[in-house]
Amino acid sequence: MSADLPSSALELRSTLTDDGVVTMRIRETEVAAPTDDQVVVRVEAAPINPSDLGMMLAGGDADAALPAGDGVHDAVAVPVTEAAVAAQRARLGKPMPIGNEGGGVVVAAGSSPAAQALLGKTVGFLSGNAYAQYRTLHSSQCLAMADGTDPADAAAAFVNPLTALGMVETMRAEGHSALIHTVGASNLGLMLNRICLDDGVGLVNIVRKPEHVEQLRALGAEHIVDSSADTFLDDLTAALRATGATIAFDAIGGGDLAGILLSHMEKVASAQAGEFSRYGSDTHKQVYIYGGLDRGPTTLRRDFGMSWGLGGWLLTPFLIKIGQEAADRLRQRVADEITTTFASTYGTRLSLADAVDPEHVKRYARMATGDKALVTPNA
Amino acid sequence: MSADLPSSALELRSTLTDDGVVTMRIRETEVAAPTDDQVVVRVEAAPINPSDLGMMLAGGDADAALPAGDGVHDAVAVPVTEAAVAAQRARLGKPMPIGNEGGGVVVAAGSSPAAQALLGKTVGFLSGNAYAQYRTLHSSQCLAMADGTDPADAAAAFVNPLTALGMVETMRAEGHSALIHTVGASNLGLMLNRICLDDGVGLVNIVRKPEHVEQLRALGAEHIVDSSADTFLDDLTAALRATGATIAFDAIGGGDLAGILLSHMEKVASAQAGEFSRYGSDTHKQVYIYGGLDRGPTTLRRDFGMSWGLGGWLLTPFLIKIGQEAADRLRQRVADEITTTFASTYGTRLSLADAVDPEHVKRYARMATGDKALVTPNA
Repeated sequence: MSADLPSSALELRSTLTDDGVVTMRIRETEVAAPTDDQVVVRVEAAPINPSDLGMMLAGGDADAALPAGDGVHDAVAVPVTEAAVAAQRARLGKPMPIGNEGGGVVVAAGSSPAAQALLGKTVGFLSGNAYAQYRTLHSSQCLAMADGTDPADAAAAFVNPLTALGMVETMRAEGHSALIHTVGASNLGLMLNRICLDDGVGLVNIVRKPEHVEQLRALGAEHIVDSSADTFLDDLTAALRATGATIAFDAIGGGDLAGILLSHMEKVASAQAGEFSRYGSDTHKQVYIYGGLDRGPTTLRRDFGMSWGLGGWLLTPFLIKIGQEAADRLRQRVADEITTTFASTYGTRLSLADAVDPEHVKRYARMATGDKALVTPNA
Repeated sequence: MSADLPSSALELRSTLTDDGVVTMRIRETEVAAPTDDQVVVRVEAAPINPSDLGMMLAGGDADAALPAGDGVHDAVAVPVTEAAVAAQRARLGKPMPIGNEGGGVVVAAGSSPAAQALLGKTVGFLSGNAYAQYRTLHSSQCLAMADGTDPADAAAAFVNPLTALGMVETMRAEGHSALIHTVGASNLGLMLNRICLDDGVGLVNIVRKPEHVEQLRALGAEHIVDSSADTFLDDLTAALRATGATIAFDAIGGGDLAGILLSHMEKVASAQAGEFSRYGSDTHKQVYIYGGLDRGPTTLRRDFGMSWGLGGWLLTPFLIKIGQEAADRLRQRVADEITTTFASTYGTRLSLADAVDPEHVKRYARMATGDKALVTPNA
């Protein structure tokens, strides 16, 4: 192990209290020396994904964020409704670690061959506590990148890449041949577009702004549907007919989009079925909600027959379900293509202090497409 | 075959026209002589199930039903909205057969052993055109009852019995150990209650009136929750905790009930999980919508983590999925227990003329629990 490992370093934690406030605070934490199977990563970058915000902000109103530093360390306080507090009793008063994933350089390693093999390497890692200057991790939590990889490029090697690959794997496993993605211009959407182009899989990209149509078109996407256009439903129907997509992955969650997708998949399927059935077509139509950009209720008009499913989709259970070998195959593809297929772009870079600055919190909590934030804890 | 088979007899058909009217009409139809594998059933009784109403009334407003007879045969006309007409283009102008199932006596049979074995027997049958005086059917569409069975008792041997058995089979196949049913006091609900008591399966019966609590209690049901009570949500939580039910079958469809069930299944599961996860518990919670007593939209607040599914459930695909042998086993249980476990009760008996009488149409279209109608075409 390295001699110049600090004994302590800074990290971010998020604490919800029963007075209806969640506080994100910088604090000192011990840097544990690695055991045999562990490594210590100097964290250079960690993205703020939509999936991080739930733990960071506890569903609070980021627009009402206020400074809450104690004069030693910076902090930010955000109000949380009583109902949201009640739904999160299990975390009350506990300083929760935050940051699902990050990238950095292995600066110390235990004696095991797997740990030693990582020493000096740039790695991406999945840890749930990535907003920190140093992290002591099991070697299996790290994905080694090719020499010369920028740690910032390795920072988002798990959540979005494996989710995008998982969508295509799920599509195949459940017997569909093409898919719909409801946030086509997101970082994840751009990855999915590249995967589908490489693998020859039909993809209907739904975007919410005209400029995103152009962006995806320039990236080679064939089927792009703008939900803000007057022609949305006709465009959607045409894209579904062209691709035969019968499964959708939806990051929006709230509103009527999931129902609209089921309804229009059914419309295409029943037109092809010919004979009338009062139960709709036999074609199974599936929507998986994997995010909640719209936290409002999901409304289904149920005008899509009886062969349909709606459900939650989450990365970890998916990886467990497919098993270690299949998961390793997906991880290796991510490492091999980290600067191409799985490249992320960021709208802003934040120090730990920036990450708890109320103005920055307001901005990244909006999760605007193209404006993802990257935390750089050692910057 | 029998010498006294009539050459023609009466039947009901339902025709939707693009002027926004659906007409149910009595008409003469040929009684086809049976081929080798066929039998002719003199239909004594056929239930009006909720699943029949879609084809009969095409989603029209039964409260506006008007007589539409032509002086020879009776008929009833019901207005249908433009949107509903548009969704049913494939049936426009076609006189659709109606009546999923019925019961009667086999009065003629083809030469095959299977057909001959049914001659003179009381049978239940599944045909999609049961509202008729005679039906020529393949022998495999019939389920022979024990000698002495009243044809009225055999009339509802398929839809409700196999659906109730299918719910328990689905529960087991998908790894759940107890279930919820949202119309506990319906004919189907009473069957399901008897199945679960016999098989030792935990069942949460949801009912919508206090008197249904008493009715089910008298029938031995242990967990009965009245959704009209102020204590509904607490009662539901207690019943879910007691049974461990993580799958529900919902005949209502519209409104917030499906979401409430998912939410409270999650509440019980996450309380048992202990550790906080922002994605909710790992327990998969499932709701299947198999009916649409409330045709309004389904609203989900999504306060139930990420391990959940909602979908349509339909008998025919289920029977295909489990295969012939398993389906035959379920059918034989129905025949063996047709006057006990699978007994139905009816609020009214209707001749074919009654079935197209506007006042009767208004009544049976309400689908009130305990007021199911039985059509008796030869009465």
